[in-house]
Amino acid sequence: MKIDLPDSYRRFKRGPQVILPKDIGLIIAYSGIGKDSLCVDAGTGSGWLAVSLARVCNRVISYELRDDFIAIAEKNKVIANTPNLEIRKGDITKDLKEKDVDLITLDMPVMEKAVPRCKKALKPSGMIAGYLPNIEQVKKFFARLEKNGFVNIRTYECILRDILVRPEGTRPSTKGVWHTAYIVFATKAPDSQKVAKSDTAKEHANG
Amino acid sequence: MKIDLPDSYRRFKRGPQVILPKDIGLIIAYSGIGKDSLCVDAGTGSGWLAVSLARVCNRVISYELRDDFIAIAEKNKVIANTPNLEIRKGDITKDLKEKDVDLITLDMPVMEKAVPRCKKALKPSGMIAGYLPNIEQVKKFFARLEKNGFVNIRTYECILRDILVRPEGTRPSTKGVWHTAYIVFATKAPDSQKVAKSDTAKEHANG
Amino acid sequence: MKIDLPDSYRRFKRGPQVILPKDIGLIIAYSGIGKDSLCVDAGTGSGWLAVSLARVCNRVISYELRDDFIAIAEKNKVIANTPNLEIRKGDITKDLKEKDVDLITLDMPVMEKAVPRCKKALKPSGMIAGYLPNIEQVKKFFARLEKNGFVNIRTYECILRDILVRPEGTRPSTKGVWHTAYIVFATKAPDSQKVAKSDTAKEHANG
Amino acid sequence: MKIDLPDSYRRFKRGPQVILPKDIGLIIAYSGIGKDSLCVDAGTGSGWLAVSLARVCNRVISYELRDDFIAIAEKNKVIANTPNLEIRKGDITKDLKEKDVDLITLDMPVMEKAVPRCKKALKPSGMIAGYLPNIEQVKKFFARLEKNGFVNIRTYECILRDILVRPEGTRPSTKGVWHTAYIVFATKAPDSQKVAKSDTAKEHANG
Repeated sequence: MKIDLPDSYRRFKRGPQVILPKDIGLIIAYSGIGKDSLCVDAGTGSGWLAVSLARVCNRVISYELRDDFIAIAEKNKVIANTPNLEIRKGDITKDLKEKDVDLITLDMPVMEKAVPRCKKALKPSGMIAGYLPNIEQVKKFFARLEKNGFVNIRTYECILRDILVRPEGTRPSTKGVWHTAYIVFATKAPDSQKVAKSDTAKEHANG
Repeated sequence: MKIDLPDSYRRFKRGPQVILPKDIGLIIAYSGIGKDSLCVDAGTGSGWLAVSLARVCNRVISYELRDDFIAIAEKNKVIANTPNLEIRKGDITKDLKEKDVDLITLDMPVMEKAVPRCKKALKPSGMIAGYLPNIEQVKKFFARLEKNGFVNIRTYECILRDILVRPEGTRPSTKGVWHTAYIVFATKAPDSQKVAKSDTAKEHANG
Repeated sequence: MKIDLPDSYRRFKRGPQVILPKDIGLIIAYSGIGKDSLCVDAGTGSGWLAVSLARVCNRVISYELRDDFIAIAEKNKVIANTPNLEIRKGDITKDLKEKDVDLITLDMPVMEKAVPRCKKALKPSGMIAGYLPNIEQVKKFFARLEKNGFVNIRTYECILRDILVRPEGTRPSTKGVWHTAYIVFATKAPDSQKVAKSDTAKEHANG
Repeated sequence: MKIDLPDSYRRFKRGPQVILPKDIGLIIAYSGIGKDSLCVDAGTGSGWLAVSLARVCNRVISYELRDDFIAIAEKNKVIANTPNLEIRKGDITKDLKEKDVDLITLDMPVMEKAVPRCKKALKPSGMIAGYLPNIEQVKKFFARLEKNGFVNIRTYECILRDILVRPEGTRPSTKGVWHTAYIVFATKAPDSQKVAKSDTAKEHANG
């Protein structure tokens, strides 16, 4: 089944599984980011989410481990004309150095490992958004966010339905994409002194 | 039923029916707008869409006929800190003067009347997005877009499902919002000489 | 995309577009038919709905115009072992003779033409169920039912989502059937003297 | 939010959480049961599923532990006029004696415990259908079915959407029921000698 994409995405290169505009839009609108925001992203993959964030944010730093994915994402950065996106080879769970980040987006295996480091990087009331295909992954990420004192943890599934308006009749398309991934949003507590104790120390001890 | 809203929207004032983040996100991502974009919006209503566009765009002009709605939207503009949003009292079908617009968003009755004027205002490959609750409205808007040579006309319904992750079990919430509106996207043909003749002249004659 | 079918349906022959178990089940449960019920069906098509009704009802009469469809449906009647199903070559809008029918199911073009004759055939509080792919068809059928004094007219869309439970993770299937048809249910008013005047006479005059 | 019910269900008494017609219909159609079928059900609850099965089957035996639920279900049995339904006080995991059962429906806590006993009661190619609100319950039931050699294990979610056809416009209802439960279907292997070893012995040992 061909996915119906808007022109602005149809030009992009595709490498690893991409995040679709429906989910990218939910992340942008739900997090409330804008032209002054600093965003961090991992892993970059084909870079569709990273360049989409870079279109609307001040600066985006995206971490990726694989050179072949970085090559694809660098091409998409040129196509999208987003020089404010920096693609870094590295592991967000270890290499993340930024401070006062507005939004961190995660699309990577075992993303719960990145939670303590992301918490440090986020500014108070900053948000984290995880993109997770399976419910078991959602549960692990959710539990780690709770343990680290994140608040307003919400899980959504965004379903886009295509409606055919035709002379012969109007109806939803008979077949379509039913599921891409769950998106988990969480907010770093505004005042870190008052929230439940983080498991950062324990995390680091566990290596 | 209370609608679950992110913090950035919870602070906003509510007047007339608002457009929810799920639909705002789809409009932003699908249209591919960003920090350099010029957007036009009508009618302003509570201004949720207008301020959300202003967060991520260079400039937004929003038309509204009612003074009470303008007052609410001006408050939300302050809350969102988006001085690049200009709210104008006026009727987009007559008063729209802008040129080279990247995206026009419509949430108003009988929006098909605005199509010819919007076509003039859009730059080539610029997009229009209509937000329409009923299928009959979709069909009228769709037909007018076709008649005016718009291409890639697509109708979507964006459904957001809330997943409850709880110690007692994980499942979708039992009740929720099933429908807000259909969103119709269309693109102004890149080269206006080559597309089907517009009905602009006829439109104006009909007043 | 292969449709996932239960064993009892997988054995059936397929001719014209079939009605899927999800929609057949809704018709059976919503209408409350059972072992004492008399049902009428048109058009037979591949006969999947007719044999499914015959499994759970006392008697089913199904009308079909095309000989090739009747041949397929007769085979499915044998496979399903439902001798209480009678497949008749004929046009339900003219040939329907039964009285005191509990449920009439319609899956045919221009089904609104059958409404006056169906009204006569139904017993008081008997139900009619129409299976219609497009919204324009729903509106025409709905209007005719109202005009003929049917009550409790309801339109549903039954969506079946396939959940994959696998060692590598649990999630909905990524792709699937989004739409088969709308199902419109209506009830013949319990006391025909008291309902709005039927347009039966007018219908017949219009031929 | 009021649930929209057909007349045949509106007359029923409500006690514990009931199974809605959309899910009852799926169970009937998907299992392919009919007038010759023997069904077993547990727990009875308000008896909506049991009387619905009794309408279309030869005989239904429903097990329930609580006297207050049995009292409600006995009233619904009278309303539905289904003398072929027998409501037994008892625990299906211990008290189930039937043989050659066509379909067993389960709506009870910890239903995976009933799997080995149900397997004995079912005829070859007989089906089991479990109604489970949470995904964790689905996974436990699914695993037990696999361990006991059941085949064609499928998990569905049946979503019913209400479409409003009105003079002022046609659209889905804005709010509605998003989730009742997942339904897991499984088939007893046709030839028990050839399937994977059951864990029946172990189950009994664990008591």
